[in-house]
Amino acid sequence: MKHLKRSEIDGFERLYKINLVNALSGFKSANLIGTVSAAGEENLAVFSSVIHLGSSPPLLGFILRPTTVARNTFDNILETNHYTINHIAAPFVKQAHQTSAKYPKGESEFDATGLDSVYRENTPAPFVKDSPVQISMKFKQEIPIELNGTSLIIGEVIDVYFKENMLHEDGFLDLSKMSVATINGLDGYCQPVPLKRFKYARPNQELEEFS
Amino acid sequence: MKHLKRSEIDGFERLYKINLVNALSGFKSANLIGTVSAAGEENLAVFSSVIHLGSSPPLLGFILRPTTVARNTFDNILETNHYTINHIAAPFVKQAHQTSAKYPKGESEFDATGLDSVYRENTPAPFVKDSPVQISMKFKQEIPIELNGTSLIIGEVIDVYFKENMLHEDGFLDLSKMSVATINGLDGYCQPVPLKRFKYARPNQELEEFS
Repeated sequence: MKHLKRSEIDGFERLYKINLVNALSGFKSANLIGTVSAAGEENLAVFSSVIHLGSSPPLLGFILRPTTVARNTFDNILETNHYTINHIAAPFVKQAHQTSAKYPKGESEFDATGLDSVYRENTPAPFVKDSPVQISMKFKQEIPIELNGTSLIIGEVIDVYFKENMLHEDGFLDLSKMSVATINGLDGYCQPVPLKRFKYARPNQELEEFS
Repeated sequence: MKHLKRSEIDGFERLYKINLVNALSGFKSANLIGTVSAAGEENLAVFSSVIHLGSSPPLLGFILRPTTVARNTFDNILETNHYTINHIAAPFVKQAHQTSAKYPKGESEFDATGLDSVYRENTPAPFVKDSPVQISMKFKQEIPIELNGTSLIIGEVIDVYFKENMLHEDGFLDLSKMSVATINGLDGYCQPVPLKRFKYARPNQELEEFS
């Protein structure tokens, strides 16, 4: 095994270090967060830090960096209290990643990338029309992470829209069915292929698979 | 598109709801966290909530549930200040998932599942020998999430061990090279296949791929 000590990691050139450390958590979720300002300016930005926080109530979080493109997203969330989370699928990974470019605030990433927006009742923020899983979120709380100036942004799930063929009988949503992507590091898009789905594990009992 | 309102989600049977909501963030990281108690009892537990928080300093977080199997992990972290994060790869997803069974505190999940532990200098906690990416972590902070009684547990990267063939020239760690897995929902293990890796995106400029 290759061994890197912390002192070596700290000494790497900035981009090398970002590429490496961004891969250390494992594969990441691939989402586009859609928002709109109070003045009606749309924003769409790629995020790889959306995580599940709990089911009752249904809460999702994401990490907001201290500066950069993410700020437009959060400014809009503070203005309207709403945002959308849209899963990125294989057919539009290139357009999704292009939203990471630093567009001026007045320019919609929907227009710039050619991704279509769609609006639905009770959600002021735009959804990504071609996304197979689209979630309407209401902002709940910003928790500052003082160690590095980032924040955990928490929202509650209000409405969920998805392609019906993804849903199994037991509530499992099969993301592979619609080619949902995952991100390796900063910029490596991958498409997961199902291996195995396991039933509830118990000590000293053979683990069963779903057939 | 199938539409589920929040009131419908809240009304679902517990397991159905957990299956559904756990898939809403997208694909999740697949890791085994290794710890040891002050008395020398090993623990190993599967986690799908490890996230990247920043690169300078290199910080990773994970979500700790209010109760359940995760508590042994955190009790040990508080006793020794150290833990390991080990990426789950396709050849051992079954053993990895079996660590989610509720073993008594005195029983090592390494022994119970047949996964081999390995110890390395400066890290009291055990690593998973067959894992292609093994990280030595030092505990930094617990941030309570009062909305649902969970916590964000933050640690800093101390040492990293990985298969050398995963490392690209620019620091990118290619997780697919060693069949690192990802998790769909609670229990669906998948293996990502590379699609595209993109260069830095700029407004009004064609996005380039790495060749």
